[in-house]
Amino acid sequence: MNALVLTKFNGNPQVQEVAVPTPGKGQILVKIDSSPINPSDNSFLKGLYSTKKTLPVIAGFEASGVVVASGNDFMSKRLLGKSVACFAPMDGDGSWAEYMVTGNKTAIPLKKNVTLEQGSMLLVNPLSVIAMIELAKKGKHKAIANSAAASALGTMLNRMCIDNGIALVNIVRREDQVELLKGQGATYIINSSSKTFKQDLSKIFSELNVRLAFDAIAGQMTFDLLDALNAGGEVKVYGGLSEQAAMANPGRLIFENKKVSGFWLSEWIMHQSLLKMLKHFNKIQKYLAEIHQTTVHQRVGLNGAVAGLATYMENMTAGKVLVKPGLK
Amino acid sequence: MNALVLTKFNGNPQVQEVAVPTPGKGQILVKIDSSPINPSDNSFLKGLYSTKKTLPVIAGFEASGVVVASGNDFMSKRLLGKSVACFAPMDGDGSWAEYMVTGNKTAIPLKKNVTLEQGSMLLVNPLSVIAMIELAKKGKHKAIANSAAASALGTMLNRMCIDNGIALVNIVRREDQVELLKGQGATYIINSSSKTFKQDLSKIFSELNVRLAFDAIAGQMTFDLLDALNAGGEVKVYGGLSEQAAMANPGRLIFENKKVSGFWLSEWIMHQSLLKMLKHFNKIQKYLAEIHQTTVHQRVGLNGAVAGLATYMENMTAGKVLVKPGLK
Repeated sequence: MNALVLTKFNGNPQVQEVAVPTPGKGQILVKIDSSPINPSDNSFLKGLYSTKKTLPVIAGFEASGVVVASGNDFMSKRLLGKSVACFAPMDGDGSWAEYMVTGNKTAIPLKKNVTLEQGSMLLVNPLSVIAMIELAKKGKHKAIANSAAASALGTMLNRMCIDNGIALVNIVRREDQVELLKGQGATYIINSSSKTFKQDLSKIFSELNVRLAFDAIAGQMTFDLLDALNAGGEVKVYGGLSEQAAMANPGRLIFENKKVSGFWLSEWIMHQSLLKMLKHFNKIQKYLAEIHQTTVHQRVGLNGAVAGLATYMENMTAGKVLVKPGLK
Repeated sequence: MNALVLTKFNGNPQVQEVAVPTPGKGQILVKIDSSPINPSDNSFLKGLYSTKKTLPVIAGFEASGVVVASGNDFMSKRLLGKSVACFAPMDGDGSWAEYMVTGNKTAIPLKKNVTLEQGSMLLVNPLSVIAMIELAKKGKHKAIANSAAASALGTMLNRMCIDNGIALVNIVRREDQVELLKGQGATYIINSSSKTFKQDLSKIFSELNVRLAFDAIAGQMTFDLLDALNAGGEVKVYGGLSEQAAMANPGRLIFENKKVSGFWLSEWIMHQSLLKMLKHFNKIQKYLAEIHQTTVHQRVGLNGAVAGLATYMENMTAGKVLVKPGLK
């Protein structure tokens, strides 16, 4: 089969012909239909992502496809022939290939009204959004903020905050993104390119008593968010799109009891019960089918994935880029 | 009386003649003997310190002296004639003056074997050290780190960690400071000027399982400490000597569950009971009298305080600079 193999953490995996893997006990073989390009792929390919994977390895973290073979055990065999959303294994080859082996516990059968393309984006973003909402509720936050509001995750968070009665301060960096968010019913939208950004942020954080901000950007954004948060507030960094160190004013840490921490989906998942995860997946499939479709901007074959990654990172607002190994 | 008055947050208070203040109910008037220059004075004078004080205001946060007048209430009158260590009021004039009014609750009578000079340094540093030890014990840390190990606070922390059986990684920035710490019984000393600093730090943090670091410097130091800490670790920033933003690698925050927070003595004190504070003060006076004297490097009058501040900030290892309003 063809697969996109990373041999160095240089951001540049190459298409290679490799053997189709064989599923063992507890495993399934998925014929990949679609696999979205996420910011975490960019981090991983450049060696900025924490991982147990050793090189060379096939890239790609999540996908959808059809189960075409399985190990000789009940839980795996019952998935045979089903359309599934699936995670790549933590320590092995990923989803940017014609086929992928993964554990039967990291594959979720898709409901009939969820397409394979929407289903390929069922895991990372929707689960992240659910986790963020849960963290907000747990901390009794009536208002939170997100620094990458125009991304697929951002617009989904906006929708789910509206549904959950949580005020969300959407931070975007371009005027057309302000319009996008408005069109999706967002009430609070701040443009980080505006000259009055810091004042706008402080004003709205103060009015809404924002003490929790999710930050996908790091660098100066972390600094500005921490400055603007109310006393006792926390910035949870979940990405490093600026590719710079997260910064913080020592005075805000010392005198205002604020902190900077991180959010990692994999860590969060490990603390969820199986039952809770099943509930989450049902909720997500309903969302994806009926409420909030993620826009697909581009479909690329394995040969087009590296260029697709660049396209995506340059303008995430345009929508997701899907790697489709079946496309030539 | 003469007093050092700050009219702008420009780091440059001026000697002015002002009226001697009158103590009201619950207050005492202290004839100031000595007042140490602390890093927090530097921050305050430059406007980097969180404060409720409005300008113009007399600078200085802690001092020693003799109570020469009081409000007409029992608790204040019983301090008359006593030598005390005292804090400046949170919202009023400070201790760099011939006299200061403060509340009777923020003055502690000195035991006979504690000199006025040592007593003037009884509050900020020793209480900070006690707070740090308590935080370490509360988090069940058997090893912690401090990034300003050669300071008065740092050497006191070293001594108290030895007495409490907590391993302390002392981070200094010059070779003579390595010798100083060795002479004081320190086991783990790392020089941040060394080319192998980062590797040294990682190695020792890993060996001792360090997950808590106190950082007085911020900037790159916060970044390096966070990198080297074991998973789940926390950097508590308590100063900003580098006068730069605290920095953090997003990957450490996201994938290793680490965080950057702050430590502020005033906040900590607010959560202590009066009884506990009295115990702390007894312990500290014993320490100052019998175990660990703080070195005094220079004594300056009010006119010499600004120069003294510069001297102190340039070389904190040399010892404390005391402002003595009685010196001409």
